[in-house]
Amino acid sequence: MNVSEKGFFVFAIAVSLISFVVAYYFYRWVNAQKSENKKIAEIGEFIKKGSNTFLKREYLVLTRFVGIIALLMLVFLPKPIWSGSPSDNIWMVISYILGTTLSAIAGKVGIQVATIANVKSAEAATKGIKKSFLVGFRGGAVMGMAVVGTSLLGITIIYALTHQASAVLGFSFGASSLALFAKAGGGIFTKTADVSADLVGKVELGIPEDDPRNPAVIADNVGDNVGDVAGMGADLFDSNVAAMSAALVIAMALDKTIGNSLNIAMIFCYAAIGLLCSAIGVIAARMGKRGDPTKALNTSTYFTTALFAAFTAVATWLFGFEWRIWGATAIGLFVGVIIGISSDIFTNDNKKPVQLVAKASKSGPAFTILSGISYGFVSVLPSMVGIALSALLAYKICAPIGDGYAMFGIAMSAMGMLSIVGMIISNDAYGPIVDNARGLAEMGDLGEEVLSITDELDSAGNTVKAVTKGFAIGAAGLTIIALLGAFMSEVNIAAVEAGLEQIKGFDIINPLVFFGLMIGAAIPALFSAMLMLGVDRNAQRMIQETHRQFKEIVGLKEGKEGVVPEYDKCIDIATTGALKELIPAGLMSIIATLIVGFVGGVQAIGGFLTGNIVSGLLLALFMSNSGGLWDNAKKFIEAGNEGGKGSDTHKAAVVGDTVGDPFKDTAGPSINTQVTVVSLVSSIMAALFLTYNLFG
Amino acid sequence: MNVSEKGFFVFAIAVSLISFVVAYYFYRWVNAQKSENKKIAEIGEFIKKGSNTFLKREYLVLTRFVGIIALLMLVFLPKPIWSGSPSDNIWMVISYILGTTLSAIAGKVGIQVATIANVKSAEAATKGIKKSFLVGFRGGAVMGMAVVGTSLLGITIIYALTHQASAVLGFSFGASSLALFAKAGGGIFTKTADVSADLVGKVELGIPEDDPRNPAVIADNVGDNVGDVAGMGADLFDSNVAAMSAALVIAMALDKTIGNSLNIAMIFCYAAIGLLCSAIGVIAARMGKRGDPTKALNTSTYFTTALFAAFTAVATWLFGFEWRIWGATAIGLFVGVIIGISSDIFTNDNKKPVQLVAKASKSGPAFTILSGISYGFVSVLPSMVGIALSALLAYKICAPIGDGYAMFGIAMSAMGMLSIVGMIISNDAYGPIVDNARGLAEMGDLGEEVLSITDELDSAGNTVKAVTKGFAIGAAGLTIIALLGAFMSEVNIAAVEAGLEQIKGFDIINPLVFFGLMIGAAIPALFSAMLMLGVDRNAQRMIQETHRQFKEIVGLKEGKEGVVPEYDKCIDIATTGALKELIPAGLMSIIATLIVGFVGGVQAIGGFLTGNIVSGLLLALFMSNSGGLWDNAKKFIEAGNEGGKGSDTHKAAVVGDTVGDPFKDTAGPSINTQVTVVSLVSSIMAALFLTYNLFG
Repeated sequence: MNVSEKGFFVFAIAVSLISFVVAYYFYRWVNAQKSENKKIAEIGEFIKKGSNTFLKREYLVLTRFVGIIALLMLVFLPKPIWSGSPSDNIWMVISYILGTTLSAIAGKVGIQVATIANVKSAEAATKGIKKSFLVGFRGGAVMGMAVVGTSLLGITIIYALTHQASAVLGFSFGASSLALFAKAGGGIFTKTADVSADLVGKVELGIPEDDPRNPAVIADNVGDNVGDVAGMGADLFDSNVAAMSAALVIAMALDKTIGNSLNIAMIFCYAAIGLLCSAIGVIAARMGKRGDPTKALNTSTYFTTALFAAFTAVATWLFGFEWRIWGATAIGLFVGVIIGISSDIFTNDNKKPVQLVAKASKSGPAFTILSGISYGFVSVLPSMVGIALSALLAYKICAPIGDGYAMFGIAMSAMGMLSIVGMIISNDAYGPIVDNARGLAEMGDLGEEVLSITDELDSAGNTVKAVTKGFAIGAAGLTIIALLGAFMSEVNIAAVEAGLEQIKGFDIINPLVFFGLMIGAAIPALFSAMLMLGVDRNAQRMIQETHRQFKEIVGLKEGKEGVVPEYDKCIDIATTGALKELIPAGLMSIIATLIVGFVGGVQAIGGFLTGNIVSGLLLALFMSNSGGLWDNAKKFIEAGNEGGKGSDTHKAAVVGDTVGDPFKDTAGPSINTQVTVVSLVSSIMAALFLTYNLFG
Repeated sequence: MNVSEKGFFVFAIAVSLISFVVAYYFYRWVNAQKSENKKIAEIGEFIKKGSNTFLKREYLVLTRFVGIIALLMLVFLPKPIWSGSPSDNIWMVISYILGTTLSAIAGKVGIQVATIANVKSAEAATKGIKKSFLVGFRGGAVMGMAVVGTSLLGITIIYALTHQASAVLGFSFGASSLALFAKAGGGIFTKTADVSADLVGKVELGIPEDDPRNPAVIADNVGDNVGDVAGMGADLFDSNVAAMSAALVIAMALDKTIGNSLNIAMIFCYAAIGLLCSAIGVIAARMGKRGDPTKALNTSTYFTTALFAAFTAVATWLFGFEWRIWGATAIGLFVGVIIGISSDIFTNDNKKPVQLVAKASKSGPAFTILSGISYGFVSVLPSMVGIALSALLAYKICAPIGDGYAMFGIAMSAMGMLSIVGMIISNDAYGPIVDNARGLAEMGDLGEEVLSITDELDSAGNTVKAVTKGFAIGAAGLTIIALLGAFMSEVNIAAVEAGLEQIKGFDIINPLVFFGLMIGAAIPALFSAMLMLGVDRNAQRMIQETHRQFKEIVGLKEGKEGVVPEYDKCIDIATTGALKELIPAGLMSIIATLIVGFVGGVQAIGGFLTGNIVSGLLLALFMSNSGGLWDNAKKFIEAGNEGGKGSDTHKAAVVGDTVGDPFKDTAGPSINTQVTVVSLVSSIMAALFLTYNLFG
């Protein structure tokens, strides 16, 4: 069959539009569910308002940030405006702004639906588990479809209009800028609120977790939405776009040297098929007769995976794509599943590690921490080996096709891992929705039976999260390796234009590479520390405010009828603090990149990115898995093991959980974004680093 | 002046002998101090016996391990005995055994003196601080002189007799094998005992820290000796030998291609001068009139540093060595000091980080942990930048001399950092001696005034430890970079012999390198986790035994006259457990190296070593500094700040300290050794990895 690029653009755009239709249908369906309980509606309204307040404030700060970057970009990138062609600069700025905007819109839609779906899911639980599950899942699926649809639509349009690497990278950098704010900012917000609500409520006053008297409790619920729904959505929007961008940049370089545009067609074709399969997967998702929500979620994931493998095989045969590249994609997908399963082993309370940490907690909190950190360290190995192996295999499979194909294979392997991202996001967003539904069911006094249903749904959300998180980190890892390849492509294009010699790679024995490597490795540690210290400082402010309200608002502590705490004050503190604490961490990583680049040139940056990837993956896996492990060890004890709730063992486990919260929800998952931002900044600045530097 | 290699061998051997004379003089001097208190003598005897028991058992297990390795070496290394010249294999085995033996002897001597000096230092404190300080310091200096003297003597003899890289590397690998047992085994021992003694004594029964009723208390004191004296000595013996070996291997390759043996002469000359300056420094060390022990220790370090810089400059001028190489050495020395100072900032209780962690502890143990981990993460940056910069500068300074000199510059920079290692060990060994002296003063009821003196000496030991630890990790970092260069030299010599193409470096873009990099980075995390879980398991066994004794021995809990616990049972458990838990961790790292090498060949190993260095440094710095920080935060609170001893804040800080103990005394410092072992295994196996591999 004869293949034209344009046909695939149309296909990709069509699939994006289909995904919007699916999202709209689910939105209408969720919205049409009954909601009658007034108290739940009232609290749900508070959560919705709080979430929107945060988003509005965040987007306001972001607009200024984006404005400054856009201005700098207009003047300097891809080349100083006086030395290149101004239209390139204009296109890059437009792409950048589009990248942030589309991701922001997807986040907004996701939050909107999530804050409706939680109320509906809580009430649906009175009718049984199957309906309640479906409401939660379809609420999450709106986010999944919106995120993947907008990202595919955006990058297709940008590429079709410009055919320029700089515009594609600009779009990707826009998505990363938003992700940095949404993920790290949301992460600080959610843990500030969580920690403060728990410390004052549960620990000091001994009132239940979701007690509406607690001024910080709504902020806590809002946090679930802004951190886990909007933040996670922006994170995966970012990874998805970055993987496509890396593949595109490498394919464009290949196209220039070999003149084979089939690779570019293949990227759009595969991405569209991934979205299509996810759409089919989410539509087909139902709870089975035995009624196990975990199984329902996992089954639809595996179903989507199989579908993707089959459809892409058909497309490869039909359009004459390279089978070897299909192989690389399949490997990525397969390894993604393996990584997900290995994360599950370390965080599932049916498995040894969680149970051993629960047992160690008998000797006190120090042992909860020590054993949790130890298993977190161990958990790093299988995922690192998995990522390393899939990169190696993808490279080896694709190298025989021709020069430059090896790195393209790695990029396609990353795309393979991310192909079912629509499904992943749906599963992931399901978690906070049913978590909130559980809180609402408790606050709305829906009774024990309903609570046990929402508990079961919530627990399924936690279990599946481990698998999807493993997927997300693994995919980010491969993507960043591909971005290293994209960086090299950009350097070499700039080198040709400047009449310099092309670089062949980054030799570790070169002291500039090593210099970059060491500094790059230290950045994720510093970045995590800044975020965690930010949570700490911010929580102190919020605790003060909570104390003030309990002291000054008459009748609040006693739960007098009609006395309501000033929820919005707490939300305001969390919001202001999150944005204030986030900016230095983000700037630090960007400035470090610039310093290394202008001091050591492109070789130092090659090392810097590598150090950043390696230590970033190490710390992200460690922190995410340790955090998940502590969370579930606490739940395992609360389920009546090792002394049960209220015992000293339980208290020790609570310490672990509190440490784990910013590990798994603030620092750990933000590292991905930090590494992506740094990689994109490097690619965008490649020509400048090549020309202006001290030592290179 | 005309220079002959032989002259420098004689010089190095002469200086080694001088250092033995100094050590012997100090030993006699310490031994001649008065000791009259019977109770102290009795407890001192228990500690001595326990330490010797551990050493004997450790050396027994080690002998078997060394036997097996020696046998394998005899058959396979440097080349299979049927394909190379058997005499090479025999020399390598002899060197290997000599490396372990000399290090073992130095450790034995150090322990012997330390267990005398602690008693003498405790009693000297009744006469005032100056004398007590001097006894502690000179006791430590015996170890310092013995370690550096034997290592210099050994490597000089081996090189002078064989002139073979394989023999030098064999000697170094011997030192590493011992260090692995002494540092990691000693580390598990000391923390097993520390944690168990505290948990049963202080926490459960509420008796004082060094109460002789506690069956685990002597094991705890023994632990200080076997972990901090013998373990630390073996660790620095290892680093010192590894730095010299790396420099020698590179210089020998240079000698082969350029025919300049001056570089080899320079290595022995500088090493001998370093030892000479350390000897002068330890002899000159006195407490000033103002009587500040911290100042006395730091002053002698800086004095030794200045002396070394001056003497080597004179030697360089006299013998016509390259000034550029002298420059690289000086940079290493200078950066070592900077790294030491930066570690001090993060662990000294006069500085912000410790005080902020103490303050955060007010909100409970979770915040002690979170803030301590955060500052530990931050503390990584200055040292990583320091190591990166000194490698970069050494390379840039030495590259103009000629091909291959750049990597030699890095090796000499590492030697520069380690040049004053005799002084460093003396300072470091001083710590556990006065720590034990403090315990003895308490158990011997020497009164408040004496206790306040020993407290001051102890606190100086802790402060100085941060500086010396920074030095040690920094030097190890540079050494391992140099070992990477040595590995490449070995590969290329093997390549020439096998008629293969020489390698130019390790390109990150090469997927085999990247594959190795990812796996190499995961190993230090896994290794640390295995050691920490080992401490945990071992402590559980010892706690059980302690409980048993308190239950079964009549009158023990009540402190009845003449009732003594069975100290040796606890020592036995700590010993057996430490050796049992250590072996899997050590084997794991060696086996991982073999797998990566035989799967991916030398390119994968290049990446593997790099990943190992980067993540090893990151984790070692993080764990050492966090651990030191928690220790001092607890002491800061105990000094009456933030609520003082017994407050909830103090309890939270104790949790931090308990987590920090295996961080800073087991896992953190053992990572150095793990990385060195892996580097040496790689160099030794270079020819085999080149010939036999799956993917390379």
